[in-house]
This record gives sequence, structure tokens and C-alpha cells, in this order.
Amino acid sequence: MRRSTAGTPEDDPRARASRPVALTPMLTAALEAFYENGYHGATVRDIASRVGVTVPALYYHHENKEALLYALLDTSISRLDTVCHLVDIGGGSPVQRFNDLVECLVRHMAVSGKLAYLDGELRSLTPEHRRGYIAKRSAIEARLLRAVEEGVAEGSFDLAYPRDTVRAMLGTIQAVATWYRPDGELSLDDLVKRYLSILSRMAGLRSA
Amino acid sequence: MRRSTAGTPEDDPRARASRPVALTPMLTAALEAFYENGYHGATVRDIASRVGVTVPALYYHHENKEALLYALLDTSISRLDTVCHLVDIGGGSPVQRFNDLVECLVRHMAVSGKLAYLDGELRSLTPEHRRGYIAKRSAIEARLLRAVEEGVAEGSFDLAYPRDTVRAMLGTIQAVATWYRPDGELSLDDLVKRYLSILSRMAGLRSA
Repeated sequence: MRRSTAGTPEDDPRARASRPVALTPMLTAALEAFYENGYHGATVRDIASRVGVTVPALYYHHENKEALLYALLDTSISRLDTVCHLVDIGGGSPVQRFNDLVECLVRHMAVSGKLAYLDGELRSLTPEHRRGYIAKRSAIEARLLRAVEEGVAEGSFDLAYPRDTVRAMLGTIQAVATWYRPDGELSLDDLVKRYLSILSRMAGLRSA
Repeated sequence: MRRSTAGTPEDDPRARASRPVALTPMLTAALEAFYENGYHGATVRDIASRVGVTVPALYYHHENKEALLYALLDTSISRLDTVCHLVDIGGGSPVQRFNDLVECLVRHMAVSGKLAYLDGELRSLTPEHRRGYIAKRSAIEARLLRAVEEGVAEGSFDLAYPRDTVRAMLGTIQAVATWYRPDGELSLDDLVKRYLSILSRMAGLRSA
């Protein structure tokens, strides 16, 4: 067993990332409606009806449909941001942090399912909300890039285009959400093992 | 300059893949409507109005909204399938075919823009249409996997999980469509150069 990067199992960012993102009943209903009918096709009336509240009650918590979309995206990216922050403050070596960040990202995507599909609706956010979401996503990308660049500096990694490679890594990790099924043949642990192997190679891990 | 894998410049699959996919006016209008309002939010009436025809005239060519979505997805994946077929019949070495397939896939995604966004609407297709689309996509994946496996067999490539790696490669190439802007700072040729470097590493190219 690899050591946890934090003190207790509850703080282990990899364990946290393996759990589905916790959503309120209203957000769960909104996610179902967006997934079934598309963001544009879904109505606030249908979402309120699914959760068994009146439309005004729903508006009390969420200003409008766009606010529901943003709340879903923000809940998901904020959880991932927290998890990646926990890895970083764990203070491991660049290679250890790289492995833990990749593992958390893969686990998060593997259990995100329908939430991940919402990424295609980013352009439906208000400019302010879109900026907020992209800032958190960029912060996560920056953590992975920092681990890669520090790994290059200490001679553990060797690659030609760190910035492009990290973007390519995130693209392939994000794609996991579109095909991985937690109840399918490939276990989450095996998925992680394979992606650690594939992404270590992308980073040019000296021993890979 | 690398040699063309086919006889004339017009047959060069890489040149073909660099051109935007050709769409009829009706399909162009449908793509715009789906992109702006989402597949579920778009109406056949709006699509007909955009292209300046009556709704019955549109139904003469496309049975319903789902048929428009399928026609768009099929036009795009069929072009890519043709391009990849041209690479394969070019009969280069496994590494040459791998490079050319990657180049064609990257170029296709880079110029696909809004078409690529439709991939998120696959679940809106009828089961039969979805099967047809996935069969063509799987055929492309199989071509890339064959080049990788033949490269491994001859000792040019070295990697632990060929099948997972090829899927990871396609995920990262598909992501190109979400961020690459043909009028941005990075030229298409430089994009291809970087992705060939990144993906050759994923394949464990011996000289990489």
C-alpha cells in the first residue's frame, strides 16, 4: 500500500476523490433534468416537480436555471480543487504529487458520470460564472504543471512540451467520464493503475 | 517535407483532414441551431427558417430532428474514416502510419469546432444510429491500435497498455476541438508537431 499523503484516511484526498460528488436534492434533480432533456430543453418547472417543491421555493435557493447549472459545475470543480489542494499540502516529492494528482483526477472523473457531461454546457454560463469556473479549472491545471516542471527540474521527468502535455493529460482524464462505468469490467483501482502508467510515460518518467 | 502517403496532393489524407468538413446548407443551419440552443432546445422550424426553406421542404431531405443530428455526426465521422483509410492503404511502416493517423486526427479535430461539440449528444440518437456512429468510431480506433501493435511487434514502440493508451490518445485528440482556435496563436502545423511528440511518447517510441 502506498502511504496516504495526509494524516487520517478521512483526509486522504484519493479516498475523497473516489466518492461521488455530494449534491442537494435540488441539484440532483437539476442534473437529471439537464442530462435527460439537455440544459436548453430542461425547465425550472420540471426540476421543481422532480424534487417535489414549488417553483418559488426553488427560486428561493437558486435564482434561475443558469444558477442551477453553475451550482452543479461549481460544486464539482470545487471538490476537485479541494482534493488537489490536499495533495499539494501533503508536501510529497514532485513525482509523488504528480501520481497523487493524477490518481485523484482519474478517480473524480470515473465517479462523476452525468456531472462531467455538463462541461459541454460551459458556454451557457454567464461570463462571470464562466470566468469563475475556468479559474478553478486553471488552478488545478497549474498544480499538475507545477509537479511536472519541478519533476523536470530535479531530473525525474523529461518531456518536450510540459504545458501542452499537461493539457493533453487533462483531456484524456476528462474523457474517462464519457466511457468509464463503475459497474463495468475494469475496477477503479485498475483504471488508476493503467492511467498512472500512461501518464507517467507522457511526463517522461526516467524509470518508465 | 515528409512524403505524401498517396499519389497526388489532392489525395493526401493530411491535406484533406485540414479542411473543414463540407456540409449542405441545411446541415450548416442545423449545426448552428444545435450549437446555439442545444439539440433539445432547437426546433426544426428554426432550422428551416435559418436556411430559408419551408418545414416540409426540410422534412423532404431529413425525416426529423434526430435525422439531422445523425447526418451531421455521420458526415463528420465518415470523412475522418475515409481519411484514415487513405493513410492505411498508403502502406507505410507502423510508425509512419501511426504518425499520419495522429496527424489526420489532430487536424480533423482542430478544424471541426462546433461539429465536435455534437459528440455530447450521442445519447440523443436512435439506438440504430448510435450503433452506426460507434462502429465507424471503433474502426478508426482499431486502425490506430493496429499501427501501435505492429509497431510494438517490430520493436519500434514499447508500452504497457496498448488498448487503454490508444483510447487515452483519442480522448486527448478529441479534446483539441474544445480549446484549439484556428485563428489563435498556435498554428495548425505547430499543434500537429507538439501532438506527434506527446503521442509518440505515449506509444513509447524507442527513439523518443
